[in-house]
Amino acid sequence: MSDFRQQALDYHELPVPGKMAVTLTKPAKTSHDLSLAYSPGVAEPVREIAADPENAYRYTSKGNTVAVISNGTAILGLGNLGPLASKPVMEGKALLFKTFADIDATDIEVKHNTTEDFINTVAAIADTFGGINLEDIKAPECFEIEKALIERCRVPVFHDDQHGTAIVTAAGMINALEIQDKKIEDATFVCLGAGAAAIACMTMLVKCGAQREHIYMLDRKGVIHTQRDDLNAYKALFANNTDKRTLQDAIKGADAFLGLSGPNLLGEEDIKLMAEKPVVFACSNPDPEIKPELAQTVRPDVIMGTGRSDYPNQVNNVLCFPFLFRGALDVRATEINDEMKVAAVHALAELAKESVPQSVLDAYEGVDSMEFGSEYVLPKPMDPRLLPRVAKAVAEAAVKSGVAKIALPENYMA
Amino acid sequence: MSDFRQQALDYHELPVPGKMAVTLTKPAKTSHDLSLAYSPGVAEPVREIAADPENAYRYTSKGNTVAVISNGTAILGLGNLGPLASKPVMEGKALLFKTFADIDATDIEVKHNTTEDFINTVAAIADTFGGINLEDIKAPECFEIEKALIERCRVPVFHDDQHGTAIVTAAGMINALEIQDKKIEDATFVCLGAGAAAIACMTMLVKCGAQREHIYMLDRKGVIHTQRDDLNAYKALFANNTDKRTLQDAIKGADAFLGLSGPNLLGEEDIKLMAEKPVVFACSNPDPEIKPELAQTVRPDVIMGTGRSDYPNQVNNVLCFPFLFRGALDVRATEINDEMKVAAVHALAELAKESVPQSVLDAYEGVDSMEFGSEYVLPKPMDPRLLPRVAKAVAEAAVKSGVAKIALPENYMA
Repeated sequence: MSDFRQQALDYHELPVPGKMAVTLTKPAKTSHDLSLAYSPGVAEPVREIAADPENAYRYTSKGNTVAVISNGTAILGLGNLGPLASKPVMEGKALLFKTFADIDATDIEVKHNTTEDFINTVAAIADTFGGINLEDIKAPECFEIEKALIERCRVPVFHDDQHGTAIVTAAGMINALEIQDKKIEDATFVCLGAGAAAIACMTMLVKCGAQREHIYMLDRKGVIHTQRDDLNAYKALFANNTDKRTLQDAIKGADAFLGLSGPNLLGEEDIKLMAEKPVVFACSNPDPEIKPELAQTVRPDVIMGTGRSDYPNQVNNVLCFPFLFRGALDVRATEINDEMKVAAVHALAELAKESVPQSVLDAYEGVDSMEFGSEYVLPKPMDPRLLPRVAKAVAEAAVKSGVAKIALPENYMA
Repeated sequence: MSDFRQQALDYHELPVPGKMAVTLTKPAKTSHDLSLAYSPGVAEPVREIAADPENAYRYTSKGNTVAVISNGTAILGLGNLGPLASKPVMEGKALLFKTFADIDATDIEVKHNTTEDFINTVAAIADTFGGINLEDIKAPECFEIEKALIERCRVPVFHDDQHGTAIVTAAGMINALEIQDKKIEDATFVCLGAGAAAIACMTMLVKCGAQREHIYMLDRKGVIHTQRDDLNAYKALFANNTDKRTLQDAIKGADAFLGLSGPNLLGEEDIKLMAEKPVVFACSNPDPEIKPELAQTVRPDVIMGTGRSDYPNQVNNVLCFPFLFRGALDVRATEINDEMKVAAVHALAELAKESVPQSVLDAYEGVDSMEFGSEYVLPKPMDPRLLPRVAKAVAEAAVKSGVAKIALPENYMA
């Protein structure tokens, strides 16, 4: 067994199984404490919430909790291994919520027969929490699930594999294009992969200024074009009226490539065909569509991003979801709308342009550059400015777009 | 607003809303930590659990978690106020789980249309947890719900309002009868109230030796007897072939009374009719069926119990559920069966006969007696011996009755 594999198992098993526990925020030592925490004192907040459901935010943990929910149908890159097998990932996500944004997250794994069962289950328990983070749910069901839950739940519902990925990708892409002196409005994009994340990423790029007709998305059968009759409704949104059919057709002269597909699917011959100063985000994990060192040998003018922490420009969802939910919870947003997502994109993109505090440099020993440029288009996860910047941008956007139930707290994140 | 009411609200609101938070049990400071806790390291426990679901107990928090689940249809004595209003109670129960047995409990409030919806929802999420504690669900639906969930879930399901109450009541009743020189096999019982707890209490007394034909249960219409045609299946189990019709008829000559009904429903004239040396557990909360001081004036030979902490002999569920689940979790019991419940009854009853450590006396300043006798038939909640005694008795019973998936840990609770 590899050393890292054993380390990962030991981390999860020892000294106690799992990664999280519950802790009390109130005293519970004396009989008097317990008479407040439970019967008879607990009847008072019960009555207040019965009178006005908003009082749940005042007297319970609801407002600082997020449920991390999966059915285990698309666990990491491992596929459909069932709900219980997804539990370590959901607990890991909960750990990231706590670590980065002090949000108390609970994992819930859902066993179901039909998509409708899953939706009904999550809708039934949603009010327990301040928000719902969906995770590792396969496409195309994830689209229907998210749509239905957004309609049915009074708290924000967010499928991180789609929108978290899209926000971070868009922020990095915007910065990389800027460094390459390209305008997003003029750039042509090739997206290899047509799953949930790919569709969300391209949708987000369009919201940020990309032209839909400049986007060539490819699934296993090649370019998604308007003559195909085998497209689901989500892929069909990106059907291009084009003669291009293959990856080689599409990538010829393209400004940017996004890979959300599989290892080594982008060849050196392919990347040679791209326009001058291209951007390549090869996000297949752990093995990218093309290795950065290979890409840079063939195309020294490329800006590379990957999903890996051991290369520059890691496209990592943790740059977004903890802070996005922090902002949404803090103004009791009823949903996470496009305005909030776009605000997160720009907050991330802008932060990468600022000089990095010493603490962040110290946290990433061995990283060569953290100066805005081809090797630093996105902030680093350990950057403490992420919390105030992203959360505030999201919260402000929620208020401005009318989905916040309360105003921005005074001096919020100041 | 009363001082206590304000204290209870402040306790829940300040300095942060609610009573619990999440805490990490593993390091999450460095990039390396996060690579173990989340991607890519987390893939290792995922694979292990996919290969064998039992590995969830090894690599996740599952084995030390209990979901405290309600639909809010019978919140304390306040009635059907809906799921969200039950949240402070469920969070309170989670606090008790943590405080008394170091179990990490999560509250889940379920919104539903039909009983079947509720069952489907809980069954769908049950595998997330090591056990399910149902709470504040109204009768008779609670019987169907518990039965269906026990059948469908691979983890123990326990409706505390029924069985927790029954276990503690039975332990206290057994001891009180013993002090009064009565045998449970010969004693006659009157149970005022025919809800879920009442039925569970009488069922438990029968399991502990009481004769079903010596039990007179009363609902709003009087004695439940075999000539009635308005009984649901659960009440019908206690239909007595008798001419007795009223509380007065039933209580005449009775050895023991259990009240799970409402305030002041047992009059001084009623209690005068009881046999010599009676036992009266007047458990309506906060106002008992008869005030202990009144009962003892009329019947100086009575042993009184109530649901209140300010009288002797409090019948309090917290004496059981944290420790019962502790024992069940520690041997991975697949259910909480009758053998385990009866073991908890006897462990509680026996503990009350032992002399009390000084620490417990100190925790209950002002309590006159903690010596086995008419004012001390049950242990006190703050007694640290409850955890080892009850948990061990339950775990041993689980192993012996064949519902434990693992053996009793060596030196368990020693």
